[in-house]
Amino acid sequence: SSATTPIRATLFPGDGIGPEIAESVKQVFQAAEVPIEWEEHYVGDQIDPRTQSFLTWESLESVRRNGVGLKGPMATPIGKGHRSLNLTLRKELNLYANVRPCYSLPGYKTRYDNVNLITIRENTEGEYSGLEHQVVRGVVESLKIITRQASLRVAEYAFHYAKTHGRERVSAIHKANIMQKTDGLFLKCCREVAEKYPEITYEEVVIDNCCMMLVKNPALFDVLVMPNLYGDIISDLCAGLIGGLGLTPSCNIGEGGIALAEAVHGSAPDIAGKNMANPTALLLSSVSMLRHLKLHDKADRIQDAILNTIAEGKFRTADLGGTSTTTDFTKAICDHL
Amino acid sequence: SSATTPIRATLFPGDGIGPEIAESVKQVFQAAEVPIEWEEHYVGDQIDPRTQSFLTWESLESVRRNGVGLKGPMATPIGKGHRSLNLTLRKELNLYANVRPCYSLPGYKTRYDNVNLITIRENTEGEYSGLEHQVVRGVVESLKIITRQASLRVAEYAFHYAKTHGRERVSAIHKANIMQKTDGLFLKCCREVAEKYPEITYEEVVIDNCCMMLVKNPALFDVLVMPNLYGDIISDLCAGLIGGLGLTPSCNIGEGGIALAEAVHGSAPDIAGKNMANPTALLLSSVSMLRHLKLHDKADRIQDAILNTIAEGKFRTADLGGTSTTTDFTKAICDHL
Ligand SMILES: CC(C)[C@H](C(=O)O)[C@@H](O)C(=O)O
Ligand SMILES: CC(C)[C@H](C(=O)O)[C@@H](O)C(=O)O
Repeated sequence: SSATTPIRATLFPGDGIGPEIAESVKQVFQAAEVPIEWEEHYVGDQIDPRTQSFLTWESLESVRRNGVGLKGPMATPIGKGHRSLNLTLRKELNLYANVRPCYSLPGYKTRYDNVNLITIRENTEGEYSGLEHQVVRGVVESLKIITRQASLRVAEYAFHYAKTHGRERVSAIHKANIMQKTDGLFLKCCREVAEKYPEITYEEVVIDNCCMMLVKNPALFDVLVMPNLYGDIISDLCAGLIGGLGLTPSCNIGEGGIALAEAVHGSAPDIAGKNMANPTALLLSSVSMLRHLKLHDKADRIQDAILNTIAEGKFRTADLGGTSTTTDFTKAICDHL
Repeated sequence: SSATTPIRATLFPGDGIGPEIAESVKQVFQAAEVPIEWEEHYVGDQIDPRTQSFLTWESLESVRRNGVGLKGPMATPIGKGHRSLNLTLRKELNLYANVRPCYSLPGYKTRYDNVNLITIRENTEGEYSGLEHQVVRGVVESLKIITRQASLRVAEYAFHYAKTHGRERVSAIHKANIMQKTDGLFLKCCREVAEKYPEITYEEVVIDNCCMMLVKNPALFDVLVMPNLYGDIISDLCAGLIGGLGLTPSCNIGEGGIALAEAVHGSAPDIAGKNMANPTALLLSSVSMLRHLKLHDKADRIQDAILNTIAEGKFRTADLGGTSTTTDFTKAICDHL
């Protein structure tokens, strides 16, 4: 049984505040008796020739073997010619869908109290192709690549997600009025998949209009699926509606069922080591990881403990206007468990 | 003097609600005794062989000759292979900068009461190149083109605008961490221009982070300058903060000092001809046009009359929760003059 055979999961504490917020997750998991054994990996301080990256071969192998992982913020080492570590992970592990739930946190007031949506972002191509060149002096171009395969794959993920999570609507976000071929192909794929899910309402929304509607009334949206860059933009916008990236979970889904959950905020070097960081984004990401493992009881308990702690408002970190340390906040969550 | 020699300006009433809101502008200009004589042009119902577009050769010549114009919404005729009328105008008239002021309207409550920013969008290239093709079956690409010339030109416009409008800061919005060459060139050009304006603070903000900050606290921004698509997205987002595209002016600036002001909302065919449309966006755009003509007295008077009418709240159109007709609202503005 799962009580006797722990599930192995990879943990990248990451840089800056990463180790502190990862410690928070470890303590909460211990308090909740989650049957997980962490395999901890750090970003190397030099390029591993086997991955051509600061990510070690062992760390990538660990995620592939375990199928699940949790990742703190990683600051890409300064220097020329290195891909961002985040992008390398997405590419190497073929993490094709980035899922970011975004909901208003009870008791934590922002201008919006009715946010409850999921952004699902194509995570491997589009504007992130890395294909760029100078055509002539003073004229450069970037290639945005959209493929049928990647578009169908993320659309399928989005509709399946909607169906299995009791969601009613999928909105495909695009700019096909301008990029008729690329975004047009993306929409075509979404439409094909939509036909297989007649119980899910499907709509298409132009990205500029979507952003306007999101800030006017985010309750208009449910599940949103979109090409890479639009997902980057809209997921951050949505995070802003409920308080920022410090509060929103994220999970990357790869081929073969790999799931790498991650906090998408930065490594905040200015407050690193000061016991001030807010571990909420990484904690909620760890909850996503548990759901991926179908450990729903544990996920529910931990999520409730986090949300209740924030709702009570007694223990809040500085970014939320409180004075609690990371360890105080973590302890408060553990006490709820 | 300007009282005896009227200034000629081109007017494109446009489609749908366009003629009604254009009528509102004409009445307000009359009430304010603006020395403008309109040259009215409509979109044709067939392609003009001289422009290869539904826009007539005469209408483009009119804008070129007058140097100023005002444009209502234009619905691109359905059918294959026609460029959007808006894009054709930008291209044919080389309208390189799209300027959209966005400020909270006194008395019209949204979630934000502290918006006061200007988005300045590169309007001719970037993701709007129209260069797209299928590489192989199921693989398509779009080219984003960034040139030194267009980037310098819009950056120069933005800094000059900031300086001459008492603005303190210019933020260049980008995704150069991913599109290092294209957005990198854009930033390089902004930096070059920034050096010539030491009195203006210059900063660079990644687009995803910018959107998050905008919804959290729009007061962080002053003048924003950016490539085409980011401008499309962010200007709509900002419009959403203060109530929507029905309330925000826009002005396109072209080489040789051409200015084509426009309402950027749609043509709303569902309410066309019903005397229900809100003319505010076109009216405020006409104010931008007057400022471009340095008719600041008239511009101030009309702007005050519009804002006061909205602030009083007695006459508001349906989109703002009121019951006034377009003509009632217009009359209320005229009464303020
Ligand atoms: C850090 C950056 C490369 C990354 C992205 O653009 O995808 C980040 O913004 C994100 O959303 O994970
Ligand atoms: C209608 C569309 C082509 C246009 C654009 O994308 O530029 C519109 O959104 C705008 O902002 O003027």
